[in-house]
Amino acid sequence: MGHLLRIPGPTPIPPQVTQAMAQPMIGHRSQACKDLIKKITPKLNRVFGSASDVLVLTGSGTSALEAAVVNMTDPGDEVLVVVTGAFGGRFASIAEAYGLQVHCHDIEWGKAADPSHVQDHLKQHPGIKTVFLTHCETSTGVLNPVSEIAKTIRKVSDALVVVDGVSSVGGAEISLDKDGIDLLVSGSQKALMLPPGLAFVAVSERARKVIEHVQRPRFYLDLRKYCGNWNDGQTPFTPALSLLMGLDEVLDMQLEEGIDAIFQRHLIMRDMTRAAMKALEIPLLTNEVDASTTVTSVKPTAFDAEAFRKTVHESFGLLLAGGQQHLKGEIFRIGHMGYCTPEDILETIKRMEAGLKKMGVPFESGAGLEAAERKWKEAMHA
Amino acid sequence: MGHLLRIPGPTPIPPQVTQAMAQPMIGHRSQACKDLIKKITPKLNRVFGSASDVLVLTGSGTSALEAAVVNMTDPGDEVLVVVTGAFGGRFASIAEAYGLQVHCHDIEWGKAADPSHVQDHLKQHPGIKTVFLTHCETSTGVLNPVSEIAKTIRKVSDALVVVDGVSSVGGAEISLDKDGIDLLVSGSQKALMLPPGLAFVAVSERARKVIEHVQRPRFYLDLRKYCGNWNDGQTPFTPALSLLMGLDEVLDMQLEEGIDAIFQRHLIMRDMTRAAMKALEIPLLTNEVDASTTVTSVKPTAFDAEAFRKTVHESFGLLLAGGQQHLKGEIFRIGHMGYCTPEDILETIKRMEAGLKKMGVPFESGAGLEAAERKWKEAMHA
Repeated sequence: MGHLLRIPGPTPIPPQVTQAMAQPMIGHRSQACKDLIKKITPKLNRVFGSASDVLVLTGSGTSALEAAVVNMTDPGDEVLVVVTGAFGGRFASIAEAYGLQVHCHDIEWGKAADPSHVQDHLKQHPGIKTVFLTHCETSTGVLNPVSEIAKTIRKVSDALVVVDGVSSVGGAEISLDKDGIDLLVSGSQKALMLPPGLAFVAVSERARKVIEHVQRPRFYLDLRKYCGNWNDGQTPFTPALSLLMGLDEVLDMQLEEGIDAIFQRHLIMRDMTRAAMKALEIPLLTNEVDASTTVTSVKPTAFDAEAFRKTVHESFGLLLAGGQQHLKGEIFRIGHMGYCTPEDILETIKRMEAGLKKMGVPFESGAGLEAAERKWKEAMHA
Repeated sequence: MGHLLRIPGPTPIPPQVTQAMAQPMIGHRSQACKDLIKKITPKLNRVFGSASDVLVLTGSGTSALEAAVVNMTDPGDEVLVVVTGAFGGRFASIAEAYGLQVHCHDIEWGKAADPSHVQDHLKQHPGIKTVFLTHCETSTGVLNPVSEIAKTIRKVSDALVVVDGVSSVGGAEISLDKDGIDLLVSGSQKALMLPPGLAFVAVSERARKVIEHVQRPRFYLDLRKYCGNWNDGQTPFTPALSLLMGLDEVLDMQLEEGIDAIFQRHLIMRDMTRAAMKALEIPLLTNEVDASTTVTSVKPTAFDAEAFRKTVHESFGLLLAGGQQHLKGEIFRIGHMGYCTPEDILETIKRMEAGLKKMGVPFESGAGLEAAERKWKEAMHA
């Protein structure tokens, strides 16, 4: 039985991407590198739904969150961070580390933010210059309605909208331009099917102007250095070239499948996963409306989440993620993004049922698999 | 005729490293990742000559230079930067961006720093708290005597010694402990035979204490977050896992060859390259004493450096680097570090001679190759 990595990132790498990353090394100031970046650029713009620059940084996803904070704000700026889980919390921690006046809008973990409540915050605090949002909150499997939130913000405020799309871009519907986002950041190791090591920052025209005027000291993550060079096929510092070679292949795969088809596939995988959990009578953390298309959080009551994770991993090679912070031990998380198909979801459910059986948890054998298959068939005939 | 990448980084990747990087993806909080980090740790300590932590960051080499600045200094601190080329200049730029009181000790490009002159600076400015040095200055091919400089500094000052070993660690003799360095940084894409994307920071006990007390805001590059977790096989943010898999293989290769044997091989490659240039009557930028074992800068007078680079690349698949800043067009640079052998140097010289011939430059055909071969034989029998 093969190893099955079903955590919400890092995610499995498609074989053709692995192959692309094995190409011989090139110079980062060579024509070959410029050509590679120029091939990547328009494709990356389509995936981020952005007509303006989508910059590529070498770093973990957190480097892109920090780039957003240090390039969009000066110390003392009043900002709102909408916190729906651990990664919203990380935005708040970075903002606090950099001396911002931080308003946190804390939502119960497992629930999405309500656009009207975000709007209320902005009405009460008209000094807020920037709002930090998380699209998919990886720690809970919640997909926040960032498009609606951005629209609602615009009605009462000129505040800039910064979105963490680390575990959503390429797996959930999001577009810098259409959704009225000013800065959209992401990472390589989630729905973008690459190893970790690249971070992305899509910059709107409005954000570009702010970045130019921010005085805060910064160097490696200074987006001004990236904006000026990207369209000439240059990066300010030596980029992670093997990952760029892989990115070129990933983007080809994504555009061949089609952006809408990718969103649809992720929607089906979410629905299959949720249907299976319901059929197995294992409670879900999030409701239908708030559930992400890229990761599902499950909150078992009849068995221990950590013991279950250990069983499916050791006996059936299935790696699921645990909960973070106060949800540690309370939930487990199933990643279904990137290089993942409905067939992979069936295999996941199969191994989960095997795990339940091994643990002696009473359940209707095959019910999860059947429910997932039914959901898939329904979606195919819809 | 195959492609021959002979620039001072990125450098060619050994096939067994490429293969290691193609292993299936793993979770960054999994036992597999902890095991990988724990395998890497002692080997990395040997390569950096450090009994204390050698931290791995996800980023370009510049991220490690910045980590050194933001973790070792508070705004307003008086520091000395010894600038022997573009990368010493980068240290100075970062220090200035972060509000330090920067003394630059500028040396003519192509020459190494003199320990007694560095000492004079410290005597004149006893308030200097940190000295930033470059070991191999990639832009000129100079190897600064950091061990002597560090010893000389210690005689008159308690200033901390920070060394940029990006293009030296793994290719030139250097050791955090033996050389009395407080912080030694490096990157993956030079003598460490990996694609770009990993940055390294070896931290002495003395530096560790400074890092704990520095108040400056920092987050992604906050070394306190890394120090606390590394020995438990954890990184604070998702690391570039495929590169870590490759690093494990690189370190095995290096320890199998032996650290001293690696230095010896690089010494031979330097001497072969220099002997060939002399036989071909093409002037070298640096003198014997200052010359780096990892990169050689050549300053032709009888032909145009850029035209030569273009010819050897287009006609013979040999990629050499050009000059940077005011040396652009004046010099070309031959990288001979990492996955590179004396045989590769012979092949490089062969193609360079072919380039000279194609350009109609008068020279004694075969003289470069012969001189390099002779040097190699001498070294083998020494």
